[in-house]
Amino acid sequence: MSAPASNASQPMMTSPGDMFNLDNPVFCCYLFWATVLVVKMLLMSLLTAVQRFRYKIFPNQEDLFFKNLEVQFDDPHVERVRRAHRNDMENILPYFIMSLIYISTNPNATVACNLFRVASVARIIHTLVYAVYPVPQPSRILAFATMLLITFYMAAVVALRTLSFI
Amino acid sequence: MSAPASNASQPMMTSPGDMFNLDNPVFCCYLFWATVLVVKMLLMSLLTAVQRFRYKIFPNQEDLFFKNLEVQFDDPHVERVRRAHRNDMENILPYFIMSLIYISTNPNATVACNLFRVASVARIIHTLVYAVYPVPQPSRILAFATMLLITFYMAAVVALRTLSFI
Amino acid sequence: MSAPASNASQPMMTSPGDMFNLDNPVFCCYLFWATVLVVKMLLMSLLTAVQRFRYKIFPNQEDLFFKNLEVQFDDPHVERVRRAHRNDMENILPYFIMSLIYISTNPNATVACNLFRVASVARIIHTLVYAVYPVPQPSRILAFATMLLITFYMAAVVALRTLSFI
Repeated sequence: MSAPASNASQPMMTSPGDMFNLDNPVFCCYLFWATVLVVKMLLMSLLTAVQRFRYKIFPNQEDLFFKNLEVQFDDPHVERVRRAHRNDMENILPYFIMSLIYISTNPNATVACNLFRVASVARIIHTLVYAVYPVPQPSRILAFATMLLITFYMAAVVALRTLSFI
Repeated sequence: MSAPASNASQPMMTSPGDMFNLDNPVFCCYLFWATVLVVKMLLMSLLTAVQRFRYKIFPNQEDLFFKNLEVQFDDPHVERVRRAHRNDMENILPYFIMSLIYISTNPNATVACNLFRVASVARIIHTLVYAVYPVPQPSRILAFATMLLITFYMAAVVALRTLSFI
Repeated sequence: MSAPASNASQPMMTSPGDMFNLDNPVFCCYLFWATVLVVKMLLMSLLTAVQRFRYKIFPNQEDLFFKNLEVQFDDPHVERVRRAHRNDMENILPYFIMSLIYISTNPNATVACNLFRVASVARIIHTLVYAVYPVPQPSRILAFATMLLITFYMAAVVALRTLSFI
């Protein structure tokens, strides 16, 4: 008869409140794949550092760890990784917010979880074909477009749901 | 007499918990305008792509979709859009987090919603006068300062509220 | 005997739901330090502007506030601040998401709050030794590694907790 028990046996929610907790499998799936993408993004910093040491290209005076070096920019191996990293920031960071707030609309669990999975795997592929081992197009464009379209879909769902609050 | 019914008829909250759900009009307003800004930011990627194809400026060997092209950087038309896009990342992404956590302080609904509206419209104007059709200053500075000051205001509210947790 | 009173006297939560409200000291600590980092990041924009006016380096035609100036790039004083700012975006923005979702796992309050404090102070030091007053290495590397390792630790906690939702 206690209040918590009656809440647990409640057959369905009348309001889609309280989505952001570990009882919600969609939020748990978001947690896992957002974590994967955060780690992937941070590894880009380390990949840039690897390239800098490999080709001895350092942009700051205080970073010249080897003798007879000068600061240098515009090395193609370093810049390729930096462009891939910047592309991550341009796409994954807005996706983090978009997919997080999309959860609040109480989406179908199967749809939402698969969107998170596909978008995350697509960005891992994007990094591989851009920064790790360059592959002919359209591989990179397809990987890029996958997360972009998924983010646009989530944006459409959220915007239609909240249009009256414009 | 059931617990849900008594919650629904509860006249006012004693604690500002549970702000992040669709029953909270401030959160709904955030959802709508954050979605608008996410879409606006992602369109910057497409605008960069448009400029790259228009002026045939590609930074990667595998992107040379036309014959007799070489990789090229520092084209003013492409770089202008990229600067506007970077400025978006510098300002809108921190704003997303700041305005999201500002909601948890249970702000006045009219104030909060209008801050979201003004900040979002200001950044749309910023993009128009920076990347789409360059306009003399101080139009861009004013658009930039609007969201900046709103974010600082929200930061002050949140920091004062949580100062004891330093 | 009312439901709110019985909730308040509840000795422990059976489910780690509802972490994102001001009743949770871990969330409050996150609010404070995330706000500090948002303000710190936005100040980088202003520091860049200070350097631009100091050395009269402007990248857009419409920004030439002084006579007889031309657009200019690649000034070392301006670029140093911009590299520090970009490094902030690469590290702090993923940290914002990672530490926010880490709260949902109901971490030990002492551990979580101290991670937030150390990570935030480390990034303030990073800015000081990179953009304000350049200091010999490894000061910057250590400040950079501190937040990076904390973010990786949070990622490990969240990923292990949500691994079944892969």
